[in-house]
Amino acid sequence: MGNAEKVLLKLVSKAVWDYGMIREGDRVLIAASGGKDSTSLAFALAERSRYSNEHFEFAALHIASDFCNCCKKAKLEALFSSWNVPYSELFVPVIGRLKPGKTMNCYWCSTQRRTELIKYATEHGFNKIALGHHLDDIIETLFMNMMLKSEISTMPPVMAYEKYPVTIIRPLALVEERQILAFAEEKGFGRAVCTCPYGRNSKRRDIRKRIEALTGGSGDTKRNIFESMKHVKDGYLT
Amino acid sequence: MGNAEKVLLKLVSKAVWDYGMIREGDRVLIAASGGKDSTSLAFALAERSRYSNEHFEFAALHIASDFCNCCKKAKLEALFSSWNVPYSELFVPVIGRLKPGKTMNCYWCSTQRRTELIKYATEHGFNKIALGHHLDDIIETLFMNMMLKSEISTMPPVMAYEKYPVTIIRPLALVEERQILAFAEEKGFGRAVCTCPYGRNSKRRDIRKRIEALTGGSGDTKRNIFESMKHVKDGYLT
Repeated sequence: MGNAEKVLLKLVSKAVWDYGMIREGDRVLIAASGGKDSTSLAFALAERSRYSNEHFEFAALHIASDFCNCCKKAKLEALFSSWNVPYSELFVPVIGRLKPGKTMNCYWCSTQRRTELIKYATEHGFNKIALGHHLDDIIETLFMNMMLKSEISTMPPVMAYEKYPVTIIRPLALVEERQILAFAEEKGFGRAVCTCPYGRNSKRRDIRKRIEALTGGSGDTKRNIFESMKHVKDGYLT
Repeated sequence: MGNAEKVLLKLVSKAVWDYGMIREGDRVLIAASGGKDSTSLAFALAERSRYSNEHFEFAALHIASDFCNCCKKAKLEALFSSWNVPYSELFVPVIGRLKPGKTMNCYWCSTQRRTELIKYATEHGFNKIALGHHLDDIIETLFMNMMLKSEISTMPPVMAYEKYPVTIIRPLALVEERQILAFAEEKGFGRAVCTCPYGRNSKRRDIRKRIEALTGGSGDTKRNIFESMKHVKDGYLT
């Protein structure tokens, strides 16, 4: 087992344990975008299912859309097949659903895909949806919410929906992006994955650079920031 | 009235109102370090006492110590006198109190001075102690606590002590440092004030730079971060 794989599996194992993310009998649907994050997540859950105490089922769902002519889906399917990750695809016409005069944006697309994921999960008996967000995503969202929405909030590692019988889990919550990149490199799928043709949201790209300047790229500092959300001191706020 | 003065008085007025910092009959002791922040604070409270609805008394206390041979105290006294700010001095041997083998540091010095301030206030019938911390200080402390202590906390605008009959208030909580600098410049006391010979804590200096990189120096962004501490979303943390 390579070093990056060890790091990935250890941190996923810690997150699953710390947050009680996966329980006996769970059926976990992995939202597989085709990117390095959710691809690494699928690998980690497949590995975990082989050695973990709790028995759980899992499958990956890729939501294809009308703006992605990705040639890499066959590679993704082959990769998942080699890892014993059941794989399905669902077509959602994200652009086709836009109301007249509206243009494509990240918010619209992610809402559409999230809705379809939940629908698919409930129809197919999955009680958990696993998303590929990692530590850097979680910190990024915290800072975006603080700086743009005047709110201390982020994407939580576990979030149960009130309206649906599904719970969102983020097993990569403790994994830094650089650790995922190292794993993708080690496994040799770094260039085989799909990236959104609209590119990363530019606000996110900008804020990511600013956060690197704040933390100096230190993993320890990022983990401290992540931990800080567990220790909100009521009498010492504004 | 100069523009920087207007800005200062407006923001102090807003903070005093928002947080109910000063009430009828309060006796406010201003901790006057001799620096631009607390000097601006003394001016703002003296002005406020002339036009505010609530009647309150105030006085400035400068804590002199055995490591400061500052030649500027006479200037500070003259400035305060011209603004009708009652001024007293107290000598505290900060270095003299160090236990053998211990060296001077910001934490030791500030603890010593805080203790003396509280003692002086209770002995002289002051129920409020006004400190010169501004918006940038408050945000800086928030980020230091997040990154180094894994805690979401800062210096609150109002903090009542449980053990003592005094409440700490920070009337400059909504004023940015650059706005204080502009005021000091406008009033012409920018170079007349005293700075600690030990210089700013180097960790603070470093983090200040990093925060400027994060916010891009934007006052709006800083105010959003300040506001975010009022909106902590419980289900959306880690």
